Amino acid sequence: EPAPVFASGVDHERLTSQLRFFLETDKLKRILRRNMLVDGARRENAAEHSWHLALAARVFAEYAPEGADVDRVVEMLVLHDIVEIDAGDTFLYDSDGQSTQAERERAAADRIFALLPEDQAGRARALWDEFEARRTPDARFAKAIDRLAPMLANWHTEGGTWLRHGVTRAQVMDKVKIIAEGSEALGAYASALVEDADRRGYFSRG
Amino acid sequence: EPAPVFASGVDHERLTSQLRFFLETDKLKRILRRNMLVDGARRENAAEHSWHLALAARVFAEYAPEGADVDRVVEMLVLHDIVEIDAGDTFLYDSDGQSTQAERERAAADRIFALLPEDQAGRARALWDEFEARRTPDARFAKAIDRLAPMLANWHTEGGTWLRHGVTRAQVMDKVKIIAEGSEALGAYASALVEDADRRGYFSRG
Repeated sequence: EPAPVFASGVDHERLTSQLRFFLETDKLKRILRRNMLVDGARRENAAEHSWHLALAARVFAEYAPEGADVDRVVEMLVLHDIVEIDAGDTFLYDSDGQSTQAERERAAADRIFALLPEDQAGRARALWDEFEARRTPDARFAKAIDRLAPMLANWHTEGGTWLRHGVTRAQVMDKVKIIAEGSEALGAYASALVEDADRRGYFSRG
Repeated sequence: EPAPVFASGVDHERLTSQLRFFLETDKLKRILRRNMLVDGARRENAAEHSWHLALAARVFAEYAPEGADVDRVVEMLVLHDIVEIDAGDTFLYDSDGQSTQAERERAAADRIFALLPEDQAGRARALWDEFEARRTPDARFAKAIDRLAPMLANWHTEGGTWLRHGVTRAQVMDKVKIIAEGSEALGAYASALVEDADRRGYFSRG
């Protein structure tokens, strides 16, 4: 709960809601993903992952599809994993977890975004829904970035979560498709990366 | 070093530079700050800190000074700590460290941003220089957010780094001034927060 502190000239209730949301989202730093850092030292958490994607969206901005607005993409990526505070991280290749993921994440979005003042809650929720639906250029590019980053980490840790969790080349190629739908250039790169990883024995043989 | 992989239709040299920068910046996840997470579980790293600030800039956007562009502020905050990969985190209240900090960080910026293609390196460097100079509304607001976040963490961990590292109320009030210069409302809040923290005994008595 935010400090019970009043500042003159500020709408106390509104600021308290904003602080409550800000403090609650600190918990994203405790949510561990399956993939390791690029140097293999430890698992990545969802907050630092979100930072790296926000950076990547700018670095790779020139590969975004026509009509994409990189500022909105960054805003989406900063928000996209907040639901994991309640729903936990669902491994990309865990099909059991994925069957209940959408429902768990919607419930999380209902609770967490609603901590914000109503206008801000509505905007955040709409952006998250847009990201999940993956129908707009912004959402497609954001999702492409989100799929590319762990692929790079897995290549740089010689197979990483692919080998550890029995992920096959075919399963990863499904993710390459999502990247290609959000960025032709990054899709072409990811596809070449998967071929190279395959030659190096970085995938499970199933 | 990025995977030696060619994707057709993509400028290989340019993409390789972008990937090199992206992979290098993964190291920010290993840079530990002094302050703890809000729940006190462990120290915060500079990457997840940067994510939380990017989120905060949106949440508290309405308190930005006139003329601030929150998209640019977010871009600045995503970049602002990357120099710590080489320069390390300098504790806000470490005056010995601070005397060499500017030089160490400039050298880091020279090396790390230059990994990007020249046009992108120039833009990133200019944004970081602007942040450090704290002369524009965007930089002032970004710095205010950067100072407010650890103050909240310290309040929520009952003094946290203030007590552990002998920081006095007067030293923290210097940081409140920086917050007030970037946001009147957040400055008023931070000032009230410090008074409350003082009543609770969260500062060192020097």
